[in-house]
Amino acid sequence: MRMTATDSTLKPDSPLDDIRVVLVETSHPGNLGGVARAMKVMGLARLYLVNPRCEIDAEARARASGAVDVLDRAVVCDTLDAALHGAILTAATTSRRRDLPHPAYTPRQAAPELLARARIGPVALVFGSETYGLSNTQLAKCQWLINIPANPDYMSLNLAAAVQVLAYELRCTLEDAVLPLPAFETARHEEVEALLAELETVLTAIGFLDPRHPKRLMPRLRRFFARAGLEKEEVAIWRGILNAVRGRS
Amino acid sequence: MRMTATDSTLKPDSPLDDIRVVLVETSHPGNLGGVARAMKVMGLARLYLVNPRCEIDAEARARASGAVDVLDRAVVCDTLDAALHGAILTAATTSRRRDLPHPAYTPRQAAPELLARARIGPVALVFGSETYGLSNTQLAKCQWLINIPANPDYMSLNLAAAVQVLAYELRCTLEDAVLPLPAFETARHEEVEALLAELETVLTAIGFLDPRHPKRLMPRLRRFFARAGLEKEEVAIWRGILNAVRGRS
Repeated sequence: MRMTATDSTLKPDSPLDDIRVVLVETSHPGNLGGVARAMKVMGLARLYLVNPRCEIDAEARARASGAVDVLDRAVVCDTLDAALHGAILTAATTSRRRDLPHPAYTPRQAAPELLARARIGPVALVFGSETYGLSNTQLAKCQWLINIPANPDYMSLNLAAAVQVLAYELRCTLEDAVLPLPAFETARHEEVEALLAELETVLTAIGFLDPRHPKRLMPRLRRFFARAGLEKEEVAIWRGILNAVRGRS
Repeated sequence: MRMTATDSTLKPDSPLDDIRVVLVETSHPGNLGGVARAMKVMGLARLYLVNPRCEIDAEARARASGAVDVLDRAVVCDTLDAALHGAILTAATTSRRRDLPHPAYTPRQAAPELLARARIGPVALVFGSETYGLSNTQLAKCQWLINIPANPDYMSLNLAAAVQVLAYELRCTLEDAVLPLPAFETARHEEVEALLAELETVLTAIGFLDPRHPKRLMPRLRRFFARAGLEKEEVAIWRGILNAVRGRS
């Protein structure tokens, strides 16, 4: 199934309805089924597959058991950006240490805020491929990292097991969730990406960023903006500033 | 993922070493492997198989991935009593409501006490077969029930997924689930103030901020920077950007 408008037209009864599980380049059909089952058993339903390296085949359906409907409604995307389109919070699950850490939380730490945001708009939980995890480029598109505690001697959490842990935390937390009142409208993934692209262009134009030697500038700025969590109006302010800078350069 | 002081203390005397996972009449080899992996990734190692209805075969080993050692050391028993021998606390995992008046807890409620008891002697977590769960006779041999929260419309938690949830809870509870903050140096008040003053000057110079009609621009930008929480190095980056802009204006 391709991306449709149904995402925005569905009215969520539960914040779980607005939480996407985004699987990037999954290679084992059994894991697709295992993930679907792990989701449904905790009340999640929105599965996104970015460039899947396998089919939703008989093995996937067998492992999905009674959650075949989650597989059947999975949205297949060509790019991570497409799967994150419209999301107001994006979180990558990873076990790797990163030298430029995004805000990083355990599932338990993250769950209350994930649910609170999901009451406002789509929230995406991103899981990398079984073999390679997520690339740095893919990670950079996510605002948060979620680190699942694990045995330091063997951290190889199965993909469906990782989804199970996150889904379980969300369900457990839901019962105690307090609803904070959002005073401002959060920017969506594509708005933030567009702003960062514009920022990169302007920084290059004014000679601050040398495209041949970019160093770690854009990753650092990405991390800064991710930590702040942009609101729609702030995106407009920053775009205004960039336009004004561009007009002078 | 990180190594903390807590992790190293898990090694010799961890209560996880004295927690048994007891699988009763498991029928799918893939689940045996999935359980072994789910255990090892959270630091559990003691697997007991009561009357297994399948072999530890190639599929089991494939699903176990790097946790084949847990399978190889599994203790096979003829009776549940044999698997529970020596245990000082026995807890049955079930999703079904039971009439039996066992104390029933969620994994999160149970985890601290399970760990506390495991420091004294063996603790057993008992999981029924994929199709039939645990019989009333088997349940009656356990002191506690552990109910994993689930979607009331679809409570069919996979066996390995159930073990994963319990093992995850035990590990989180043991680690206290707090991530150390990233080791970046936070900017001090006066550095942030100087940056904001510079920003105001530059925004005025490029014509974006009209000092006669400043509106709410600087308060909004202040709020944005405050939310991000500037680090020292980020202050330097932003000052560099402002210098580059000023050089062009």
